[in-house]
Amino acid sequence: MSSVFEAWRDRFERLRANKLFETAVIAIIIISALLIGAKTYEETNRFQQWLLVLDVAVTVFFLVEILIRMAAERRLRDFFRRGWNIFDFLIVTASLIPLDDSEMVLLARLLRIFRVLRLVSMIPELRLLMAALVKSIPRMGYVALLMFIIFYIYAAIGSFLFADIDEFLWGNISIAMLTLFRIATFEDWTDVMYATQEVYAWSWIYYLTFIFLTAFIFLNMMIGIVLDVMQKESVQMEIESGEGEAAELHGLRSDVRELRDQLTRMEALLERRS
Amino acid sequence: MSSVFEAWRDRFERLRANKLFETAVIAIIIISALLIGAKTYEETNRFQQWLLVLDVAVTVFFLVEILIRMAAERRLRDFFRRGWNIFDFLIVTASLIPLDDSEMVLLARLLRIFRVLRLVSMIPELRLLMAALVKSIPRMGYVALLMFIIFYIYAAIGSFLFADIDEFLWGNISIAMLTLFRIATFEDWTDVMYATQEVYAWSWIYYLTFIFLTAFIFLNMMIGIVLDVMQKESVQMEIESGEGEAAELHGLRSDVRELRDQLTRMEALLERRS
Amino acid sequence: MSSVFEAWRDRFERLRANKLFETAVIAIIIISALLIGAKTYEETNRFQQWLLVLDVAVTVFFLVEILIRMAAERRLRDFFRRGWNIFDFLIVTASLIPLDDSEMVLLARLLRIFRVLRLVSMIPELRLLMAALVKSIPRMGYVALLMFIIFYIYAAIGSFLFADIDEFLWGNISIAMLTLFRIATFEDWTDVMYATQEVYAWSWIYYLTFIFLTAFIFLNMMIGIVLDVMQKESVQMEIESGEGEAAELHGLRSDVRELRDQLTRMEALLERRS
Amino acid sequence: MSSVFEAWRDRFERLRANKLFETAVIAIIIISALLIGAKTYEETNRFQQWLLVLDVAVTVFFLVEILIRMAAERRLRDFFRRGWNIFDFLIVTASLIPLDDSEMVLLARLLRIFRVLRLVSMIPELRLLMAALVKSIPRMGYVALLMFIIFYIYAAIGSFLFADIDEFLWGNISIAMLTLFRIATFEDWTDVMYATQEVYAWSWIYYLTFIFLTAFIFLNMMIGIVLDVMQKESVQMEIESGEGEAAELHGLRSDVRELRDQLTRMEALLERRS
Repeated sequence: MSSVFEAWRDRFERLRANKLFETAVIAIIIISALLIGAKTYEETNRFQQWLLVLDVAVTVFFLVEILIRMAAERRLRDFFRRGWNIFDFLIVTASLIPLDDSEMVLLARLLRIFRVLRLVSMIPELRLLMAALVKSIPRMGYVALLMFIIFYIYAAIGSFLFADIDEFLWGNISIAMLTLFRIATFEDWTDVMYATQEVYAWSWIYYLTFIFLTAFIFLNMMIGIVLDVMQKESVQMEIESGEGEAAELHGLRSDVRELRDQLTRMEALLERRS
Repeated sequence: MSSVFEAWRDRFERLRANKLFETAVIAIIIISALLIGAKTYEETNRFQQWLLVLDVAVTVFFLVEILIRMAAERRLRDFFRRGWNIFDFLIVTASLIPLDDSEMVLLARLLRIFRVLRLVSMIPELRLLMAALVKSIPRMGYVALLMFIIFYIYAAIGSFLFADIDEFLWGNISIAMLTLFRIATFEDWTDVMYATQEVYAWSWIYYLTFIFLTAFIFLNMMIGIVLDVMQKESVQMEIESGEGEAAELHGLRSDVRELRDQLTRMEALLERRS
Repeated sequence: MSSVFEAWRDRFERLRANKLFETAVIAIIIISALLIGAKTYEETNRFQQWLLVLDVAVTVFFLVEILIRMAAERRLRDFFRRGWNIFDFLIVTASLIPLDDSEMVLLARLLRIFRVLRLVSMIPELRLLMAALVKSIPRMGYVALLMFIIFYIYAAIGSFLFADIDEFLWGNISIAMLTLFRIATFEDWTDVMYATQEVYAWSWIYYLTFIFLTAFIFLNMMIGIVLDVMQKESVQMEIESGEGEAAELHGLRSDVRELRDQLTRMEALLERRS
Repeated sequence: MSSVFEAWRDRFERLRANKLFETAVIAIIIISALLIGAKTYEETNRFQQWLLVLDVAVTVFFLVEILIRMAAERRLRDFFRRGWNIFDFLIVTASLIPLDDSEMVLLARLLRIFRVLRLVSMIPELRLLMAALVKSIPRMGYVALLMFIIFYIYAAIGSFLFADIDEFLWGNISIAMLTLFRIATFEDWTDVMYATQEVYAWSWIYYLTFIFLTAFIFLNMMIGIVLDVMQKESVQMEIESGEGEAAELHGLRSDVRELRDQLTRMEALLERRS
């Protein structure tokens, strides 16, 4: 029994490593994504029957594909160790939820949209890109915290002062924070300002200081990240090549010192004889 | 008496350095900030009683916390030497202002919002970030001055020419500067332009030159700051590692010169004997 | 026969390399572009006759110019090997389509607008610039793909949820992607959000996460390209100068080793004699 | 006669180099600028008398100041050699135009606004900043030309296709270019697009390709300038310090070769004797 299963597993493993198989999977993912997109068009109702068949085919394909991948692993635990595998598993499981005309339809559909994210787990260049993005998250964490503090303070001030002027924009602190985000994106911020200026003529100070602060911190964040990444690059380059040069110099110096010792011995020899 | 006070001071100092104590203070600051934020919601009126108690507790806590820190210093003067301490002291003092239903309520509330800034003085990473921000202020000073001059000239021209077209936007030089800031953020700037173009058809020159000038200077400012920071980094790296290489080379050369002197002596010895 | 043709070809080749000839061609291109631009003014109808003559002159000139360049090549195949030549050929051919009052008029006109792009093929600095732009396209490819995936997922979610609220903005997935592009450019995005917030109060999460994701990826893309270009520059500089230094060091070390061998031989000589 | 004039010139030269004198001039410039700004307020009519006196005082002061500077030069030609001097001269001359209630009033006022630019010629840090800005203009020239070609082509296409839809936005090629600049700044660009989409549904392609092209070129321009400035910095640093290291290495190698020659001579000597 076990040897039969192992033969199957090897076959699956070879299939999984197959370039053609991977290309087919990527094609299916794209078709699946287009299918979901197509459902948003009214006219597609005519193709309903045809779409339903394709939809079931895609769901079955993904189920088989993930089962192959699970079987290809030595132990099931290894499969769940990689983040992308868990992600793929969740998507396939979600696809299996039956599509009744209930509230679940929307949820099931939304979950199936995320299938397109599997392109990222398939294409190596996109994986690298995602890894780089994830790496820069901690660097941005504290800047985001600082930004949040500034937003919070301005939102508190804004909601205290301007709540009576415009309940919709400054009603409470969370609405005020949304309004401030809008101001930070320069989206009709003058309309907001002109409304409050009618009551508090000096309120332009509030808006201008906020815009300068957020722009200033954003600018510094950007420069900080550029420099951070660059420093890491240069350190890595030094380890690869620069250290080599320093080591070369060091070796050269000890060579020269050996020469001196040798000469000193020879000089002593010559002097003794004379 | 003095030894008793010193024992207390040591106890306070140890408390202040305690990780748990600091975490508690940070938690209190966040709760305090949330409290202020909560006051902006209408529904919170129900919890009025409960909020009042928490508010007093926070105020008392901050008072005790700052007194501990003051007592922990050898001399009171040392406490006021650090900017953050002065800042904390001002905030706590402001919190003690009694909350009557007068105009002062608003001011007291606003002052207590700034409590959340104490997070910056508590979290070391935020302190570093703030220090970096403060350091880049002088670099931006002269660019800001240049920008102000350009804004002033354009505002003067704008208010002379367009004041009769739209009193609200170009009424006087300070209103015109605010309008120009709006144009610099691209906020409905075409509406402003189209209005003046009806009288002065050529006025698009005014707007386009202004946009190009401000964008151009902003771009140069950004690049200037990046390069300024980078140059400082590279100078520091040279001091740390590069200088070492140059010194190594220098030492090597003097070693080689010593060798030559030694050889010259030996050659003379040999020639004398022959 | 052949020698007569070759004499003509040499004459054409010399003409083509002539600075004056090139300047004249550039001038004609600019005039041709201005001519096309002038056609968009109503008042130019008065100069119709004059414009028609100039237009024919320009068309004839370009035809002769390209025939000269074709004749100047040893083989016709060589002419079509360079991309710019093909481009120029297509433009000239398109110019020869007769201008009747049919639908083709518009197409012919549009094709002749692209004549102004020949400035790029004429001015060497613009060619360099274009080459640099073309080189940075592959670097941007995968980022664009990642961006497209994010747009697609958000568009699918958006069209499922918000299609009933605003058919014009969220009707189907392609309309939703256009709306998302509008949001990414901050163009009246709050109007879009406020409309959906009336039904789904939490929909601000949808907009804010989208804005953060696209801004975050755009930021990383920009920094990535800067670093990519910089790394290539530094590698090139190492090849030009840095490698020289490393080679110098390497040569120095082998020189020093030769010295040691020589000294060892001398020492043996001395010891043998003593 | 001549010696008396020379004594005066020396006195003027010393006055001009005086820190106090310069500070006074800067103060006068700022007051003069504020004066011009103050004229834009309606209320200032009350101070009319007082303002007129100050205005005359400022005009006289600038006249005297420039005459001192002219007299301080050995030859009048030297004065007009520096750009800033010509600039100052023009401003002072313009200030002398009598202020009647004619059309010239506006021109005279505008010219006097530019007085504030003299701050730039006074403060050395601003002079450096301006020099840096002027230096980066040629780098931007060809990018601007490329940008202009793209704008021109799109404007021609736009005015051909969309002129009938909206005469105000696409009437002729220059109006279309202004509209395209508006689109490049993302200012209500969707309104423009939605209007044309009603006739040409595919016109979103026109807008999106335009936005991508301009954003792409702008991005490359920015990176190009950063790298250009950086390369110049690193070349300068190599000349100052790096070349030193390479020269050191070169010198070291020739030292080692001299050692070898010396050793070869010694070896020959030893061998001859044995």
